[in-house]
Amino acid sequence: MAHLDRTRATRLMEIAGLDALLLLSPESFTYATGAPAGVATMWRRAGAVAAIIPANPALTESAVVTDLFEAAFRASSAITDIRTNPIWVETGDIRGMDAGALSPEELIESAWAKQGRPAGFQRPETFDAARGFGLARALLAEKRLDKGRIGVEFDGLSVIDFHLLSEALPGAELVDASDLVRRLKMIKSPIEIGHLRTAVELAEAGIATLRETIDVGVSRDALAAAWEKGVRAEAARRNVQNLTGLWEYVSVGENPWTRGGVIQRGDLVKVDVGCLIAGYTSDTGRTFVCGMPSPLQARLFDALQTAYDAGLPLLRPGIAMSEVHGITTEAMAKAGFPSYTRGHFGHGLGAGLGSEEWPFLSRQSDVIIEPGMVLAFETPWYVDCVGGMIIENQLLITADGHEIMNRLPSGLVSL
Amino acid sequence: MAHLDRTRATRLMEIAGLDALLLLSPESFTYATGAPAGVATMWRRAGAVAAIIPANPALTESAVVTDLFEAAFRASSAITDIRTNPIWVETGDIRGMDAGALSPEELIESAWAKQGRPAGFQRPETFDAARGFGLARALLAEKRLDKGRIGVEFDGLSVIDFHLLSEALPGAELVDASDLVRRLKMIKSPIEIGHLRTAVELAEAGIATLRETIDVGVSRDALAAAWEKGVRAEAARRNVQNLTGLWEYVSVGENPWTRGGVIQRGDLVKVDVGCLIAGYTSDTGRTFVCGMPSPLQARLFDALQTAYDAGLPLLRPGIAMSEVHGITTEAMAKAGFPSYTRGHFGHGLGAGLGSEEWPFLSRQSDVIIEPGMVLAFETPWYVDCVGGMIIENQLLITADGHEIMNRLPSGLVSL
Repeated sequence: MAHLDRTRATRLMEIAGLDALLLLSPESFTYATGAPAGVATMWRRAGAVAAIIPANPALTESAVVTDLFEAAFRASSAITDIRTNPIWVETGDIRGMDAGALSPEELIESAWAKQGRPAGFQRPETFDAARGFGLARALLAEKRLDKGRIGVEFDGLSVIDFHLLSEALPGAELVDASDLVRRLKMIKSPIEIGHLRTAVELAEAGIATLRETIDVGVSRDALAAAWEKGVRAEAARRNVQNLTGLWEYVSVGENPWTRGGVIQRGDLVKVDVGCLIAGYTSDTGRTFVCGMPSPLQARLFDALQTAYDAGLPLLRPGIAMSEVHGITTEAMAKAGFPSYTRGHFGHGLGAGLGSEEWPFLSRQSDVIIEPGMVLAFETPWYVDCVGGMIIENQLLITADGHEIMNRLPSGLVSL
Repeated sequence: MAHLDRTRATRLMEIAGLDALLLLSPESFTYATGAPAGVATMWRRAGAVAAIIPANPALTESAVVTDLFEAAFRASSAITDIRTNPIWVETGDIRGMDAGALSPEELIESAWAKQGRPAGFQRPETFDAARGFGLARALLAEKRLDKGRIGVEFDGLSVIDFHLLSEALPGAELVDASDLVRRLKMIKSPIEIGHLRTAVELAEAGIATLRETIDVGVSRDALAAAWEKGVRAEAARRNVQNLTGLWEYVSVGENPWTRGGVIQRGDLVKVDVGCLIAGYTSDTGRTFVCGMPSPLQARLFDALQTAYDAGLPLLRPGIAMSEVHGITTEAMAKAGFPSYTRGHFGHGLGAGLGSEEWPFLSRQSDVIIEPGMVLAFETPWYVDCVGGMIIENQLLITADGHEIMNRLPSGLVSL
């Protein structure tokens, strides 16, 4: 299932004066087509695959796919106008053939002939980027877009691939569409929202299991294992088939960065975790203390809570992300910590690289909050000799405010 | 522990006429410094970190590191000449301070003052790439290299980051060093070889467990789980602390690409798996059949075995990788399949993106095999209606030949 909103894409392309988007990164290819980008994109070099989205809604979308993933593409994408780029992997397909009537040699050679393999066909070392870009040019040319203004994500295209692409599209004007694609992706489809909801619910099931495990003498690694066990148990209970990953930053005790250690009375336990559903990652942070918090722990956490509570009501349509940053920072200052400075108090969530996706709740952001965004909002602090502290929830921006997608309490929990 | 061989780097830079390497990707940073690149590199944008390797061996190496990972860097790298680039995460450090004598507010503010935090310090949204590149320029300038020919990996640098870097280094000539860095990395250090050896030994322990599980009615997912269980048991037995990942392409039955299914009598079971030790991935392929192979299965696998046996003796110093490709392809043709074409019959192994690393045993390769390379050599074939078939071993190139790092038999095993 593709998540790209064609109407929104057209509007953004009209504003930018673009004739089409040419999406080359594996993430953007999958976003636009609904199909896996395939093994040839593992090196993050462009040219194996491409998705083409014309600005004109009357023109159909099209794609370059690798031969190995053509069947997977046809099974999962609504895009039917495709060109196939061969990669290094040798295959064969004898389905529907009478294996008994022919020798193995005859069978295989006739299967390849039936597939239309040309004489002397040779596979490339990995994939031929120039060929992939040439196929993209052909698709653009069929719609008379090959001399147009073509939007490409320059933030994910290497210098080398840019030169290859420029050679393959000599008549086109290549324009940076990094920002446009980010603005397209920042509004989530109902299915993306569903993925992020499932992801955070699994993560919280894990946190509930972890929380029950907290006790003097329990190791950090045991807590992390309890978290994963809780996630997997919930995934099994719900028969979730698309849990594609898990990540955890659990810390125990005074050093917020050590990946080890054992809980002592009075220790903070910081839990910053996420689950991936079909590549979409949740992001949740919770802080526990084994026993009663020290006055210092309580004081620092209280400031984070005050700041969190100050920023939270601003997370609604029409508010600038920079304003959320300003109000949250100001609340930390009023709570006694005027030099506390954090680059962002949260971020978009999606299927991008890493757990944090543009846009950011930062001083520099020019983004206005819109319905359909899914954001993490967080007030973290990592202090050596105190420990890691975090409050972080995942929010869906609604028409007139937000819905917190988490259910577990987010205060400092004494155990 | 850094893996970069300074002598080899100097020799390659002299040939290329470079004054220094400026390494910006997280993989290359870790390779050259021995330290983690840190969370700010999760988006694969350049400018958070950098490693500088002068061609002149009398000049020391230097690095730009993020403030959050400065302590981790100092603990793990031999490089001491560093500049620090602040990122978005707020921290604090009250170690060695008298927490009782001050209020929490005073304590935190004096900790930051002690750290040298300037008045009005504000953290960037994520990280400031221009600042990072500026710090790299300053490090180069101290060694009078900032007007020199600086090698940069253009294949991993985005168009946007290239422009930022060019602005930060107006006097330098930026030269593509993608190929140079690949040629540097293709010869493994003893520690890298050790990582790859441990990785393949764990993977084989998993395959041994998987093999015992093969039976009519057992699901693909159960085989994959058995593999992982075997790996983790062996890692626990050896107390391996740096197993950083696992991957598996196990298939069962006639469709080589389905991630599901249950073994029926006569089915092929294809196992293509790897373990990561400190990021270094192994790569091994084995094929099993539940019961006796059909004449067609036996015939196709026999051809792969013949080709494998023909190519294997060529894996020794002085032989062109293209020759291995040619001889292996020729053997497949003589074995009855003249149209069989594979882009490469193996590849380097390391800590790069994906499981396959340059160089490739391909027709197009201009690389001559050298001692110290670790290569996967493989003859795979994926035929719809027959199944997946693979023979793949991991080899260390020695002074006069190779050592196969696998121990399990690699023929078609009937179970």
